[in-house]
Amino acid sequence: MQLLKALNWRYATKKFDTNRKLRIDQLNFLKEAIRLSVSSYGLQTYKVLIIENEALRKELRAVSWDQPQITDASHLFIFCARKENMEPEVNAFVDRVQSKGSASQTMQEYGQSIKVSLKRKSAEELRNWSARQTYIALNSLMIACAEAEIDACPMEGFEAEAYNRILALEEEGYEVTVIAPVGFRSSEDQSQFRPKVRKSEKELFKYIE
Amino acid sequence: MQLLKALNWRYATKKFDTNRKLRIDQLNFLKEAIRLSVSSYGLQTYKVLIIENEALRKELRAVSWDQPQITDASHLFIFCARKENMEPEVNAFVDRVQSKGSASQTMQEYGQSIKVSLKRKSAEELRNWSARQTYIALNSLMIACAEAEIDACPMEGFEAEAYNRILALEEEGYEVTVIAPVGFRSSEDQSQFRPKVRKSEKELFKYIE
Repeated sequence: MQLLKALNWRYATKKFDTNRKLRIDQLNFLKEAIRLSVSSYGLQTYKVLIIENEALRKELRAVSWDQPQITDASHLFIFCARKENMEPEVNAFVDRVQSKGSASQTMQEYGQSIKVSLKRKSAEELRNWSARQTYIALNSLMIACAEAEIDACPMEGFEAEAYNRILALEEEGYEVTVIAPVGFRSSEDQSQFRPKVRKSEKELFKYIE
Repeated sequence: MQLLKALNWRYATKKFDTNRKLRIDQLNFLKEAIRLSVSSYGLQTYKVLIIENEALRKELRAVSWDQPQITDASHLFIFCARKENMEPEVNAFVDRVQSKGSASQTMQEYGQSIKVSLKRKSAEELRNWSARQTYIALNSLMIACAEAEIDACPMEGFEAEAYNRILALEEEGYEVTVIAPVGFRSSEDQSQFRPKVRKSEKELFKYIE
């Protein structure tokens, strides 16, 4: 049960070592953990940008309250949820499952039932439902990082509309929901020495026997 | 990197073995993984109900499209997000951090700055922000289950309002967001034999060099 050890090791890294970069095998591991994430109906109604480019990160830092993690980390992961019209996602999902050998008729019907379910949601509910899926994927990244002793800082503190504009997300039907600079902690980051603070088991859970 | 092996092992379990129950050490492991989850500002604006009680699960199954996982799994995890007024959560957070030795004045100011940030959100934004945090916690549960070879089925298909009523969540300021029956797969569950279907790396990621 080394997961708990990893979760206790990690922390929201405030100061990254600007000299250390992720290796390609580490990047591939993180991507695969994200890719295998749970999602509603298995649709994965999102995409993930991984930004190494310095000029672009400088631009994004300017609309992220100038937080240095954006440029100092090795890479910046940006989770982008599809905002509306999930039909293309459902169709692509049906195609993927069929390509694995599921019966065509059954999958067409299943795809139709997903569309009917999603149509019951208001535009705002659909948008939020899609955004929630990216938080699942974010946590796959956080846990994968921790298990590989890679540092990360999950962040909601940025100007989402500016991100959408800079990254041209809107025209593709996506919006940024949450981001995470990923890399390696600086030995000077004081945050790493702070005790981890969480609700107690008693505060967080209620067991009904 | 056994995380990937675990993620490939797991699947959304449709039929549970009704004879197998989680041991107390397994339950404690799952709870600790949830408890150590990342959350915005570290606030953990949610609680998690763990239901073993058969009568209650029968009642919940009736408002979950009669899905058998609800009653057949060993335990039912219910994630409940605080809907509004996060001030008590922020105050409790400040108390927790202070109790770990952080300077009182600094933490009071930090707590105040969190309150100011959260006040910038509309009621609906705040509610959705809180709900998103529970999806992070859900994924901690999913990954912890997979690593311990415990089965689970993340579910959004239930009547949320009926859950809120039956579990008396509204009067405490919470609402159910997502649930997960947890236990052990039945050897008869055909779902376990289906290939895992995910977007390809190329569909899911965009790398900007």
